[in-house]
Amino acid sequence: MIYTEQKALGEPSALRAEIGKVRDAAIAMAALGAPRKNEALKAIARSLLDNIDIIAKTNALDVEKAQKDGLPSQIIKRLQMDGKKVEAVAEGLSDLVELPDPVGRQLMATELDDGFILRKVACPIGVIGVIFESRPDALVQIAGLCLKSGNAVILKGGSEASNSNRLLAELIKEASAGAGLPGDWICRLETRAQINEILKMDEEIDLLIPRGSNSFVKYIMDNTRIPVLGHSEGLCHCYVDSAADVGLAVKVAVDSKTQYVAVCNAAETLLVHKDVAEAFLPAFRAGLAGAARASGAPATAVRGCEKTRRILRDCGVEPATDEDWRTEYLDYIISVKIMESLDEAIDHINRYGSRHTDAIVTGDAAAAGEFMLRVDSANVFHNCSTRFSDGFRYGFGAEVGVSTSKIHARGPVGLDGLVTYKYLLSGNGNIVADYEGGERKFTHKPLI
Amino acid sequence: MIYTEQKALGEPSALRAEIGKVRDAAIAMAALGAPRKNEALKAIARSLLDNIDIIAKTNALDVEKAQKDGLPSQIIKRLQMDGKKVEAVAEGLSDLVELPDPVGRQLMATELDDGFILRKVACPIGVIGVIFESRPDALVQIAGLCLKSGNAVILKGGSEASNSNRLLAELIKEASAGAGLPGDWICRLETRAQINEILKMDEEIDLLIPRGSNSFVKYIMDNTRIPVLGHSEGLCHCYVDSAADVGLAVKVAVDSKTQYVAVCNAAETLLVHKDVAEAFLPAFRAGLAGAARASGAPATAVRGCEKTRRILRDCGVEPATDEDWRTEYLDYIISVKIMESLDEAIDHINRYGSRHTDAIVTGDAAAAGEFMLRVDSANVFHNCSTRFSDGFRYGFGAEVGVSTSKIHARGPVGLDGLVTYKYLLSGNGNIVADYEGGERKFTHKPLI
Repeated sequence: MIYTEQKALGEPSALRAEIGKVRDAAIAMAALGAPRKNEALKAIARSLLDNIDIIAKTNALDVEKAQKDGLPSQIIKRLQMDGKKVEAVAEGLSDLVELPDPVGRQLMATELDDGFILRKVACPIGVIGVIFESRPDALVQIAGLCLKSGNAVILKGGSEASNSNRLLAELIKEASAGAGLPGDWICRLETRAQINEILKMDEEIDLLIPRGSNSFVKYIMDNTRIPVLGHSEGLCHCYVDSAADVGLAVKVAVDSKTQYVAVCNAAETLLVHKDVAEAFLPAFRAGLAGAARASGAPATAVRGCEKTRRILRDCGVEPATDEDWRTEYLDYIISVKIMESLDEAIDHINRYGSRHTDAIVTGDAAAAGEFMLRVDSANVFHNCSTRFSDGFRYGFGAEVGVSTSKIHARGPVGLDGLVTYKYLLSGNGNIVADYEGGERKFTHKPLI
Repeated sequence: MIYTEQKALGEPSALRAEIGKVRDAAIAMAALGAPRKNEALKAIARSLLDNIDIIAKTNALDVEKAQKDGLPSQIIKRLQMDGKKVEAVAEGLSDLVELPDPVGRQLMATELDDGFILRKVACPIGVIGVIFESRPDALVQIAGLCLKSGNAVILKGGSEASNSNRLLAELIKEASAGAGLPGDWICRLETRAQINEILKMDEEIDLLIPRGSNSFVKYIMDNTRIPVLGHSEGLCHCYVDSAADVGLAVKVAVDSKTQYVAVCNAAETLLVHKDVAEAFLPAFRAGLAGAARASGAPATAVRGCEKTRRILRDCGVEPATDEDWRTEYLDYIISVKIMESLDEAIDHINRYGSRHTDAIVTGDAAAAGEFMLRVDSANVFHNCSTRFSDGFRYGFGAEVGVSTSKIHARGPVGLDGLVTYKYLLSGNGNIVADYEGGERKFTHKPLI
């Protein structure tokens, strides 16, 4: 492994020149066949495994500094990249090799006239900028997805992981270049100032994927003309309908809230139909307590509407305010509200939710159908936990994030979200004048 | 027909309340089945035909005012809506009835586990804001597309057409309400100030489609967080390869330039391989002259590189500057540049083009393949005119515009560009804890 320091991209004009090279590399990437891309993925996986010790050592520098700086233990945990994690990301790359190539797929074919064929074909988006949190494994995962989908990528990771990220990006660049990829298909940024610089490059960069806090995603949206694939907060609901089986509802609601609280698809608000509330709420309360005992996690605090507090009196339920219906706790807290009807539940979710993931528990198929049709969220579930909205669980392989945007890609975004399409039209001298003049007529015959 | 003046939306808070109602209507629209939507389209078409005289009279007011104000004849022509045009848009609505419903289509289905089914289903985007030029027929067309795709729509047309637009919007609202649609699915704005107001409503509006000048589209992009489906300029190229048949190349190049010069898919720059330039250029020049004679249109002026000027000496070819390669003339002017190679042509197009529509003329299939793979445009053509990139010609029915964005919808945008999807997951009490704990395993079996 020859470890070369990446050229400093301090000067704005130097950065622009660099991004210009990335754009050229994107054109070359789009023309690569699946075998070449898969060879590169395998070469990267091998290189990571070959350099497992130096990666762990380099990562230890970042972890040590984070500890010295007194960063929260949660961040330090995400920052760590030991041998086992390297093996896991290398395996993730091998999984990508097995997936079908998302590029070149024919999405539509129409005969416009005799020998005059229109095809809609999947192709890479081009240059994708990804800004991600302090997880060095995310760098490998994102780079792998971009490579497989034939895109060039500009990466900016959390500064806490800078040593790890620098090494990983170098290893990826070197291994992929060895497999015949254009060297500039991957570009790592070092500073926040460079993010602001690239926000202006709407001619060069086709898509930005910021992963981070809501306010950060909004900052990006407010300061660029480049399309942004944002995943904003997850204010997810679980609605227990009047026709719910109480045991099943408790199981689903407890998992939705407590299985992992710090993630966007955890439930934050529980809506309960008035006819089932007396039976359900005490059982739910017991379920929460049981889950806490079993896992050793903190007990989940309940904040409730007046009716909830009446049913769960003497259980220490704090009153919920309007602010609670808008709050993503990401913690062992849940807000509970009694609903008069299914309609009220749907309205509440469409009003207060973040259009991420919302579930109904009911034995009534018509109610489930109504809920799934009218709840305006990326993921709408029936009789299962909100925690299932995830690229791996959906079977997409890795994901770049869960999009709450409705445009382009919605929900868990895997390889399909990293491609677009172009229309290819092949004729034999066809001109519009002939069709406007009525000499020739379109056949518009679907071919697939 | 009861003709009621739409409530004045002058106050920002009044407008916000109104857009809130549009948002509610969007939820109701998403739940409508195809028969209801088709009935509404038919009712609108009937109403337009029933009111053909009053539409023509009302439109005459706009036309009269435009003439008094001395607007260019081209704008006045687009503004006109006589009985024949009303019949044409009514027929366009009937065509929409025949198209398959884009909503509810199952795009993917996967078994995650026994009885645990994930489906990806097409659904409306929600609330779409369309800002369009001074063509009243565009209002009907856009409203029809939004209705068929189950979206609510906010419309702002050119102020020159305000009388016509007000009447048409009222007729559409009344006829569709009569067919059972929520009254607020269509909302017409009156002023520019209201556009600025809605740009801030990123929670309420899901997509903006501005149709107009480049600078206007950029203004919108710079001032909103709402995703924008922009169709920017069309700087389209026709490349005549060394292996081109000269007669066929002349035919395609002349049609690309002259069939209709004021549109985004007209060719602005002609690239010619050096080996074919001596044979092609004089024939092309003669072809341009012949087309002008036949149609009575002005002769097309040629601006050329040095080599072009040498070959076409004594033909009054002005020298082309770097600025010419970046200019969308929308006029009887074409810039011509001699290329050393196919590679140079591809690079030129990717550098100076607007990623709209670019064509190659060649008898060499390998060269055509290379061109179609590496030219980074929404529409890439072989041996046919650039003028074919259009929703009607592609067989999509009507179009809301031609998108040069790579995200969400690219190229001519019909009904498919007005829908998104959601993931629907149905289980029987499935919880993530069981799968994380290894008690259950995902099957991830594709069902379609």
